[in-house]
Amino acid sequence: MVERALPGHFYAVGVGPGAPDLLTLRAARLVATADVVIAPRSEKSDDSLALQVVRPHLRAPGEGQEVVEHPYPMARDLDRTLQCWGEVADRVARDCGAGRSVVQITIGDPSIYSTSSYLLGLLEGRLAEGRVHVVPGISAFQAAAARFADPLTLQEDRLLLMPATDLAEVEKALAGDCCETLVLYKAGRSVADLRDLLRRRGLADRARAVFYVEQERETAVRNLDALDDAAAEAAGYMATVIVHLGRRNWAG
Amino acid sequence: MVERALPGHFYAVGVGPGAPDLLTLRAARLVATADVVIAPRSEKSDDSLALQVVRPHLRAPGEGQEVVEHPYPMARDLDRTLQCWGEVADRVARDCGAGRSVVQITIGDPSIYSTSSYLLGLLEGRLAEGRVHVVPGISAFQAAAARFADPLTLQEDRLLLMPATDLAEVEKALAGDCCETLVLYKAGRSVADLRDLLRRRGLADRARAVFYVEQERETAVRNLDALDDAAAEAAGYMATVIVHLGRRNWAG
Repeated sequence: MVERALPGHFYAVGVGPGAPDLLTLRAARLVATADVVIAPRSEKSDDSLALQVVRPHLRAPGEGQEVVEHPYPMARDLDRTLQCWGEVADRVARDCGAGRSVVQITIGDPSIYSTSSYLLGLLEGRLAEGRVHVVPGISAFQAAAARFADPLTLQEDRLLLMPATDLAEVEKALAGDCCETLVLYKAGRSVADLRDLLRRRGLADRARAVFYVEQERETAVRNLDALDDAAAEAAGYMATVIVHLGRRNWAG
Repeated sequence: MVERALPGHFYAVGVGPGAPDLLTLRAARLVATADVVIAPRSEKSDDSLALQVVRPHLRAPGEGQEVVEHPYPMARDLDRTLQCWGEVADRVARDCGAGRSVVQITIGDPSIYSTSSYLLGLLEGRLAEGRVHVVPGISAFQAAAARFADPLTLQEDRLLLMPATDLAEVEKALAGDCCETLVLYKAGRSVADLRDLLRRRGLADRARAVFYVEQERETAVRNLDALDDAAAEAAGYMATVIVHLGRRNWAG
């Protein structure tokens, strides 16, 4: 149990996929008690989704809590990414050094494809031992699987989670004997090509997709084979695809 | 947002790894409002861990909520497993048919190596369309990764999640080019052999373990190479091992 954010401590807190009630009690309590709440905001958007999720738990203005929205680059540019998170790390080190408690909120889980990873790396050695904490959050693939009431793994099944950015890599994962369930992140931009690849391998009707899971504009596609090009185009960037390749049970 | 458990609806609800504050707000609200709460209890234990987690949210006796502890077999016996969950499915179908709301709670996430999967399978076609729901929960591997403030995946990394029950299968996963991060469940009974396997492959000092993560008897092992046989023996059954094989970044 974590009762409150402690002075001089830093917390990377996962707030789940976007629904305000998929936050954990621990995350809510830390957000409510922190002196400083840092919310990442993509350079391309006007509002921080993570901040929307935790808004009911923030203290009212004037109650001694500072909320900082920090823009971060969406491009695959490591220099700019590290520069951006370097500025945040400086600020965290300064605030914690002055005895303040600092929470950084992040969509999903801070350990799974999260911007928190950069910040945690850059904070290494800058805060005293035991002062850096991570609070896990529901990741999009869990919410996507829940949407279909469809188990990801059972008994001896293996689950592989990877980004869908390189379809040649996805094809390798489908061809190799790596897993019974394949979960693809960042599948939105390439979902029509991904559907075609799965069709060629006879797997499209064993694949499901959820766009913007647990967010206002959520679309769930139970059978990827049925997704037409117009729908694929309209569905948007944030997508999780789940492909069921088989099952492995106790009998082997 | 899910406001309350609805009459005639069934909810498989993940309650996280064991800490009472790693429950989501949605799970807490469903438990508080359900007419019937079904808690699985292993045949080998006196108490349901899932029930301990949700206890603060249960209604007081006399306030119209029925709590059912249902023992389930821990053995790898599919007939007994299906018989046990068949009884629960009958009960759920009967209660939902009578207009009651039913929540089944489960440790971790109902989609990831969960007893809920059997129940969901056996309920298929027995409740009206749209009356079966799954609420994701924090899975042990997420809590284990959080314990070390150590990202599981970043950029192009692949994560493979599998049980450690068959070490020949684990060795295949280590040898194949399947993933950058390997997460092993059910690693407790074989953790000394697993450490030796990882030593032979020069990976033991890149492996971490957590036993009973976010439970009272938690033990975290930052470097599996340092785990001696006595400690391995004492650490117990419920364990997650995380092995970092490498990283795959944007540059490829």
